[in-house]
Amino acid sequence: MVISEGDLRAFTHDIFTAMGCSNEHAALAADVLIRSDMRGIDSHGVARLSGYVRLWEKGRINTKPNMTIVHQTPTTATIDGDAGLGLVVAPFAMQVAIQKAEQYGSGWVSVRNSNHFGISGYHALMAVEKDMIGFAMTNASPLVAPTFSNERMLGTNPMCYAFPAGKYPPVVVDMATSAAANGKLEIAQRAGKPVPEGWIQDGAGIYTTDPHALKNGGSLLPLGSDREHGSHKGFGLSATVDILSAVLSGANYGPWVPPFVAFLEPPDDPVGKGIGHFLGAMRVDGFRPVEDFKNHMDNWIDRFKSAKAINPDQPVIIPGEPELEAEAYRAVNGIPLVDAVVEDLNVLAVRFEIEKLS
Amino acid sequence: MVISEGDLRAFTHDIFTAMGCSNEHAALAADVLIRSDMRGIDSHGVARLSGYVRLWEKGRINTKPNMTIVHQTPTTATIDGDAGLGLVVAPFAMQVAIQKAEQYGSGWVSVRNSNHFGISGYHALMAVEKDMIGFAMTNASPLVAPTFSNERMLGTNPMCYAFPAGKYPPVVVDMATSAAANGKLEIAQRAGKPVPEGWIQDGAGIYTTDPHALKNGGSLLPLGSDREHGSHKGFGLSATVDILSAVLSGANYGPWVPPFVAFLEPPDDPVGKGIGHFLGAMRVDGFRPVEDFKNHMDNWIDRFKSAKAINPDQPVIIPGEPELEAEAYRAVNGIPLVDAVVEDLNVLAVRFEIEKLS
Repeated sequence: MVISEGDLRAFTHDIFTAMGCSNEHAALAADVLIRSDMRGIDSHGVARLSGYVRLWEKGRINTKPNMTIVHQTPTTATIDGDAGLGLVVAPFAMQVAIQKAEQYGSGWVSVRNSNHFGISGYHALMAVEKDMIGFAMTNASPLVAPTFSNERMLGTNPMCYAFPAGKYPPVVVDMATSAAANGKLEIAQRAGKPVPEGWIQDGAGIYTTDPHALKNGGSLLPLGSDREHGSHKGFGLSATVDILSAVLSGANYGPWVPPFVAFLEPPDDPVGKGIGHFLGAMRVDGFRPVEDFKNHMDNWIDRFKSAKAINPDQPVIIPGEPELEAEAYRAVNGIPLVDAVVEDLNVLAVRFEIEKLS
Repeated sequence: MVISEGDLRAFTHDIFTAMGCSNEHAALAADVLIRSDMRGIDSHGVARLSGYVRLWEKGRINTKPNMTIVHQTPTTATIDGDAGLGLVVAPFAMQVAIQKAEQYGSGWVSVRNSNHFGISGYHALMAVEKDMIGFAMTNASPLVAPTFSNERMLGTNPMCYAFPAGKYPPVVVDMATSAAANGKLEIAQRAGKPVPEGWIQDGAGIYTTDPHALKNGGSLLPLGSDREHGSHKGFGLSATVDILSAVLSGANYGPWVPPFVAFLEPPDDPVGKGIGHFLGAMRVDGFRPVEDFKNHMDNWIDRFKSAKAINPDQPVIIPGEPELEAEAYRAVNGIPLVDAVVEDLNVLAVRFEIEKLS
């Protein structure tokens, strides 16, 4: 099925409203999910909506959160998300970071007691709209083993850095710190196809190309895949995300992070509250005039786009370009949804007595 | 040759003094280099001393820099290093970041018109001593090709995140954003041994295990090695370092970064001044009480150290542990120097009429 952005947004908004979200929160949460679908990151869009609903049904998501700043300085803050949707908590936290940056040059917010926040890029781009550099990261359910280990200790812990440019759209580095994102594995699982060596290991810690190995006690590998190719760096980046998001805020970290799937119970010995995020904003004009920066960003982009290509048909891709192309294409042509997702969403429609997608 | 920390420090201090550095700057620059040798990062210690001398002889390093803050807000600044040694400029910039953090919670400094700053970890750890989280990154001479390209466009652009802990030493993630650091390649070159596939490509963009390929028009690969294993992520991280260090400060970026080796001339169409760094500090107590954070850091470290090991003889390594072990060992046993480095240093001794190493 192909559906327009507007129709999918209205549907998603209605589901969040039915879950008890205020109109404002439902619109925001829908915006984060739809933006992901628009940007071609199908794994983090409405495909996750039923997952949020199930967590809410289990009482693990609070749709009427009282989000509070529990600790702060002029440029730093810790926010308690009151178990709200990360889709709502993270934009709130980013607003706090942006306000601090407006006043003092930069703002940094660590968040506890939250849930899955969708795509990092959404939050980082909020800063870019204000001519700031945006940072966003989050920890996540443990699926990744550190180098030398076969235990799931870390999430795919994404980090995002977003930079405004001038004539070009923003440069957005938005990446899981694992060799492959879980979404890519799910695609291989559905297709019954092997995955490349270096993405996952089995329960014994041996490389495997079986996409189902993760379900059977295996784990994802950090970016770098093995020690020789720098997996300790991927592990280090993932650790950085975990510490800034959770050790700093008082959220759960490492293997204590509550699972996203509702059928798995959170650990019964939590070391903090919910999952953690870390968001930041720095004013470009805290460093140099905005126009100077944007002109040099354009020059940077021009130069990298024209870097010598190994294959002339495949030029260098500027970080963020594929998502922008998807956004432009889907704005005109609509958002394609696979059957499984449509069925999933229509089960929700019946559950909440709203009109089915068609 | 094995030499004590004190003797190597005194020798290095004398060389920097002979180059015209003030006593204070010579002591600082020596401290950065010796710390690298002590931490086992031999590629960034005194092995580079003759390289700094050659750049100074070419007039590309100013040993009497007038370092200035050219732009600032309460928590951000741009510093012009006046072509000084990065070993001196970066600690100066980090002090500015720390002072801002003491007052406002965080401080962020982008640096232009600098030179190679040694190990990132030195600078980031300055913040940790103040119970802050430290960040340090720098761009560097172009050796790395972006994904899909065979042109050297980026340096090995390291990034470092350092976190204080309680009973444990700090967690220090200090990593090149390439699959392998250039130092590792140099070791293979000296030994005449092949390197693993995924570290470098030849001039045509084809994987090679020949460590000399880099000299013959090849390039290093970003962390992730190839697109399938996430080299676009390594490229994105390296781009982030380049933008924060140089586009933000007004330094040279991408292929315009001046080469570290003095026999290669800098591009004759510079887009900025010198090379760039980015340094940051955030007060831990800007987010939560320091003792709480340190207790949870200790718990994080304990849990990761005890993660299930694939091979019981090789437990998980906490980022920063190998450097600490080297530091402890070398404090007792001295610093081993390979013959080529000793010869190199003794040429400098003759050149500056100071006592040779023996």
